[in-house]
Amino acid sequence: MHIKEVYSLVKNGLDGVNEQFKMLASHQGDGFPELQRMLSHILSGRGKAVRPLLALHSGSLYRCDQQKIIFMATASELMHIATLVHDDAIDKADVRRGQETINKIWGTDKAIIFGDYLFAKAAEYAVATGSLRVVGLFSKTLGAISYGELKQGFSAFNLEQSYEQYIKRITGKTASLFALSTEGGAILGSAPEEYIKILSEYGLNLGISFQIVDDIFDYIGTEEEMGKPVGSDLAQGTVTLPTLMLMERYPNDNPVKRIFENEGDKAKSIEEAIDMVRRSDIVDRCYRVASDYSEKAARNLQLLPDTPNRRALYTMAEYVIKRKK
Amino acid sequence: MHIKEVYSLVKNGLDGVNEQFKMLASHQGDGFPELQRMLSHILSGRGKAVRPLLALHSGSLYRCDQQKIIFMATASELMHIATLVHDDAIDKADVRRGQETINKIWGTDKAIIFGDYLFAKAAEYAVATGSLRVVGLFSKTLGAISYGELKQGFSAFNLEQSYEQYIKRITGKTASLFALSTEGGAILGSAPEEYIKILSEYGLNLGISFQIVDDIFDYIGTEEEMGKPVGSDLAQGTVTLPTLMLMERYPNDNPVKRIFENEGDKAKSIEEAIDMVRRSDIVDRCYRVASDYSEKAARNLQLLPDTPNRRALYTMAEYVIKRKK
Repeated sequence: MHIKEVYSLVKNGLDGVNEQFKMLASHQGDGFPELQRMLSHILSGRGKAVRPLLALHSGSLYRCDQQKIIFMATASELMHIATLVHDDAIDKADVRRGQETINKIWGTDKAIIFGDYLFAKAAEYAVATGSLRVVGLFSKTLGAISYGELKQGFSAFNLEQSYEQYIKRITGKTASLFALSTEGGAILGSAPEEYIKILSEYGLNLGISFQIVDDIFDYIGTEEEMGKPVGSDLAQGTVTLPTLMLMERYPNDNPVKRIFENEGDKAKSIEEAIDMVRRSDIVDRCYRVASDYSEKAARNLQLLPDTPNRRALYTMAEYVIKRKK
Repeated sequence: MHIKEVYSLVKNGLDGVNEQFKMLASHQGDGFPELQRMLSHILSGRGKAVRPLLALHSGSLYRCDQQKIIFMATASELMHIATLVHDDAIDKADVRRGQETINKIWGTDKAIIFGDYLFAKAAEYAVATGSLRVVGLFSKTLGAISYGELKQGFSAFNLEQSYEQYIKRITGKTASLFALSTEGGAILGSAPEEYIKILSEYGLNLGISFQIVDDIFDYIGTEEEMGKPVGSDLAQGTVTLPTLMLMERYPNDNPVKRIFENEGDKAKSIEEAIDMVRRSDIVDRCYRVASDYSEKAARNLQLLPDTPNRRALYTMAEYVIKRKK
C-alpha cells in the first residue's frame, strides 16, 4: 500500500479530528483572544498526524463507533502537542516544524500554563470516548512520558548510559503514546483482548523505531527538512543511539565528550560529531536497530485479520524507516 | 464545631490519603532516586489539606465507599500540588510553605516535567475512583484552572481590571478545584443530584472566599506565617482585591502604579502599598466581600440533612474567614 492510501483510507476520521481542532481553536478562545491565537498557532502547525492515524486504523479493524475513535485520535494528538509545548519551553527551542514555538512568541511562563491547558483538553477528549479503561491508559501514558522526560533531564550531559537505558527512555518518552493510540483505538473498536494486546505491542515497537529514526535525523537531516536546527540533541545533552555508538567507537578524543564537558567551541564540536557520524557506518547500524523494531511491529500484525486497515498499519511500519523527515 | 473536630471526624480518610502519598513517594521512585527525592520533598511539605477535607466530608454525608473517596481526595490534593509546582516555576518563587520550592532545588526545567508527572498521578487516582463522571470533572477543572492562570498571566501588570474579572479569575484558578472536591465527593458518596449541586456551589463559594482571604494575607501577613514573602502578588503583577480597592481609593499617585510601570524602587513601593492598605479600611472591606461568599456557602448547606459532616463543612465556611494563615 502506498503511504498516501494510509491517509486516504481514514480520510473521514482525519477530517473529524481536524474538525475538533477547528472547534477548539474557535470556541475555547471566546472572550480571550490571546488563548485563541495560541490555539490557532499550535493547531495550524501540525505534523504528520501519526498518532491519529494509528488510533483510526487500529479502531477500524472491527466494529467501531467512528465518533469515539475520532475523540480518541484527537486526545492522543493533543497530548502529543502538549508535551511538545513543554519540551520546547524546557529546551528553549525557537523553531518547531518550521514555525516559531509558543515559548519563543509568548515566553516560557505562558508556555507552561498553555501546555497544562492542552493536557486538560486532551483529558476531556479522552473522557468523551466514554471508556474509563481508555482514560486510565491516558493517565498511565502521561505518567510514562513525564517519567521518561524526567529521566532524560536527569541523565542529560551524562555519557554513562547503556543502550538498554536509552531504549527504556524512548519507550516512555515516545513509544508509550504510540501504544496508547493503537491500544485505545483497538479497545474502542471492540477488538478481542488478544488483538488489543497485539496492537499495543505493535504501537510500542513502532514508536521505538520512530524515535530512533528521529534521533538519526538529528545527525543526518537538514534544518529545512526537520524544521529545527541539526544537532539539537547534542546541544541539549540528550544521549541518543548514534551518540552512544560514536562514543563506543571513539571512547577517547571525542567531540561529544568535549560538548558534554563544556570544553572548547561547542558549535564546532557539534559539527565535528555530525561529520564523524555521517562518514561512519553508524547511521547504517542505527537504521538496522530501528528496522529490527519496525519489523517486529509488522510481524505482530500477521496475527490480525487481513483488512485494508491492517495493511495500512503494515505500511506505516515500513514507512517509519523509509521516511525522509 | 471546633476546627480540630473537622479533622478528627475524617481521621481515617486523612490517614488513607497520607498512606497513598507515602506509597507514591516510596514506590514510584524505584530505581530513580532523584524522582523519589522530589516526591518525598513535595509530599512532606503539605499544607492544611483543605481539598481532601472537602472531598472526605462531602463524600461521607451519605452511603459511601471510603476507599473511592480517599482516591478522590488524593487526586484533588495531587492536582493542587501539581499546579503549585508549575506556579512556583513561573513565579521563580524560592520558598513555599516555609520550604524551598522544586524549581529552587532542581531548576525550572525539572519543575515543569515533575508537575506534569504529578498531573498524571492525579489523573490515575481520579480513574481509580471508577467514575467516568468524576474523571470528567477533573479534566474540566484542570481546564478551568489553567484558563484562569493563563488569564492571570496575560493580565499581569495591567490595572485595567474589574472586580468581576477578578472574581472570574479566582473562580477558575482556585474555586474550581474546591468545587471539584465537594462535587466529586458527593458523586462518589451517592448523594442525590440536587445535593450534589448544592455541594458543588458550596465548594465554589468557599473557594472564592478562601482566595480573597489569601490575597488579603499577601498584604497583612508575615513571611513567617505564610511561608513566603509578603507582597508576592504585587511583585508579580497579579491584581488582587485589595490592590483593586487601593487603586480605586488613590487613582493617581499610587505605589501600585509605580510598581506596575516599573518606576522607582520596587521594594520600597511594595512596602508603601502594604502600609497604605494596612492603615486603611481596605482590609475590612475585603473581609466583608470574603464573608459574603463564605456565608453564601454556609447558607447552601442548610438544605442538606443535618449530620456531623455537614456541620464540619459549616465550620470550614466559618474558619476560612477566621484563619490566621
